[in-house]
Amino acid sequence: MRLRNVKNAQDKIDSCSYMIKKEDYPACFSNNQPLEIEIGCGKGDFIIEKAKQNPHINYIGIEKYASVLVSVVKKLENQTLNNLKFLCMDAKEIQEVFFHSVEKIYLNFSDPWPKAKHAKRRLTSKEFLSLYDNTFKHEPMIEMKTDNVLLFTYSIESLSDYGYTLKQVTFDLQEEDNIQTEYEKKFRKLGLPIYKLVAIHKRNVK
Amino acid sequence: MRLRNVKNAQDKIDSCSYMIKKEDYPACFSNNQPLEIEIGCGKGDFIIEKAKQNPHINYIGIEKYASVLVSVVKKLENQTLNNLKFLCMDAKEIQEVFFHSVEKIYLNFSDPWPKAKHAKRRLTSKEFLSLYDNTFKHEPMIEMKTDNVLLFTYSIESLSDYGYTLKQVTFDLQEEDNIQTEYEKKFRKLGLPIYKLVAIHKRNVK
Repeated sequence: MRLRNVKNAQDKIDSCSYMIKKEDYPACFSNNQPLEIEIGCGKGDFIIEKAKQNPHINYIGIEKYASVLVSVVKKLENQTLNNLKFLCMDAKEIQEVFFHSVEKIYLNFSDPWPKAKHAKRRLTSKEFLSLYDNTFKHEPMIEMKTDNVLLFTYSIESLSDYGYTLKQVTFDLQEEDNIQTEYEKKFRKLGLPIYKLVAIHKRNVK
Repeated sequence: MRLRNVKNAQDKIDSCSYMIKKEDYPACFSNNQPLEIEIGCGKGDFIIEKAKQNPHINYIGIEKYASVLVSVVKKLENQTLNNLKFLCMDAKEIQEVFFHSVEKIYLNFSDPWPKAKHAKRRLTSKEFLSLYDNTFKHEPMIEMKTDNVLLFTYSIESLSDYGYTLKQVTFDLQEEDNIQTEYEKKFRKLGLPIYKLVAIHKRNVK
């Protein structure tokens, strides 16, 4: 995402009740519902809609840049969603917050880091997959969408090599039954295909 | 493949030295080279070129229809390839011929069987994958190419679910380093993408 500098972004998000700090989880939710997180939630369209549609699930959107999360603050003014929080942090810090607590990770339109020398930075690299391992409560489950075919094929190989089983592999995701991110809306307008997969790790199966 | 009836097809292929019967394997080869097979070899372009380029590997092309294999007979007139044979049989009979002897299976532009009720007939269904198991000498390895996106996504899921690890997943195979089948040449002319993957089963890894 090309970043637009937003004046006092950190102050603006700090004053929003939907924003939490690392140490606020799990106390930030007043219930024990299952937790799903989106890494790289951007302006939050996807996870806000998820939270509205599924009040029985808790959601946390993780985004590295405060200047992006400012958009979330505006969107949530005058809305009451008790099952939704946002956390401004780098995905690398995920283990500091979540330990055997996440049911599902969403990766939507992640940075493809197209250069081979940057492959480790892709959110489906084995380096990141190993960071996710201990955050999962049960069988690891990752749902990803992207418009980038090279990131998609890389992810299929990387997830498969890591032991994930691939489900719902789709090369041209239809609009039905699908919550769109900001990026997705833009790509769809251009008529570009959207790739999707769900990956499950059967680590508990002997 | 739309079948054209060829008069006396069976007689024509029976008289060709490249054609074998089930019981002729392994004696049909006078050496102990590794064996790779193509299931549904059609008119043979792919496997004939493979055999020419790799004299240190034995190849057997398997095709259900004698009327298709007639084309192979014509192509091999006046050619001497000691590492190539063809077998007219249904893929379902594969276990009757090969037992712990195949290094690699090629599936090129297999029938997609698009209706869900016919999914078992796809050559990457779990039914077929289990038929292949005991034919492999070492780690099972399947290389597939197709122009059919639904067969491709189905195959990714089916192979992954069966325990195969996916490698070299490509959504738009380039012409370099690639031996083209008859179908592929046709689809490329139309500018259609060719999908490819290699799948390896790490069954021996503890």
